[in-house]
Amino acid sequence: MEDKPPVVSKQKSQLVCGVPTQVVCTAFSSHILVVVTQFGKMGTLVALEPGPVTGDVSKPVLTTRVLLGQDEPLIHVFAKNLVTFVSQEAGNRAVLLSLALKDKSLEGLQALRNVIQECQVW
Amino acid sequence: MEDKPPVVSKQKSQLVCGVPTQVVCTAFSSHILVVVTQFGKMGTLVALEPGPVTGDVSKPVLTTRVLLGQDEPLIHVFAKNLVTFVSQEAGNRAVLLSLALKDKSLEGLQALRNVIQECQVW
Repeated sequence: MEDKPPVVSKQKSQLVCGVPTQVVCTAFSSHILVVVTQFGKMGTLVALEPGPVTGDVSKPVLTTRVLLGQDEPLIHVFAKNLVTFVSQEAGNRAVLLSLALKDKSLEGLQALRNVIQECQVW
Repeated sequence: MEDKPPVVSKQKSQLVCGVPTQVVCTAFSSHILVVVTQFGKMGTLVALEPGPVTGDVSKPVLTTRVLLGQDEPLIHVFAKNLVTFVSQEAGNRAVLLSLALKDKSLEGLQALRNVIQECQVW
């Protein structure tokens, strides 16, 4: 308890497929907080938590839960698409994702994953 | 929509009443995100939203809701105590507070408010 690491945070502000985008990633021992906004507002807050590893599956399945904002099926898909790799790379840590997307194209999502990767704090 | 302000974030890492503490404040158009941790983990996530202003009361009452973590009566008290001033100073914006407190003394809370004030992004 006495040897606490400081909270590490990285931020990027850039055009993603022509859309002004801000990404902020913050690492906690329990979670990675990932903020992605293309509107300046916080958007939908989604918790992604790894389930138990069962059988031959080596990677736990992430369960998604909308904590704040509209709970639509697509938001769960986008959330998993964007930050599953974060959870895996961070030793299957839980991810808290705040998402305000303007561009919901597959190309946009791929480009966003790259920006999140550049904000690696895990 | 085209003139988006970047997401502004400020961070402090310091001893608060002898306890190593990290505070991160991030301003969105819709919310202020305030992270306070004395354990390195994210802790309890609380949403504080201003209710409607009624009658002669000039300041709206904040309603608190625990989104993640244990929902205990004291967490609502601490949350309001810590960040009501943030919401008011930010034009009655909603606040999302992540709180992992070791020192829950009144003196500690007062000192924490001062650190949050130093991370002013609103």
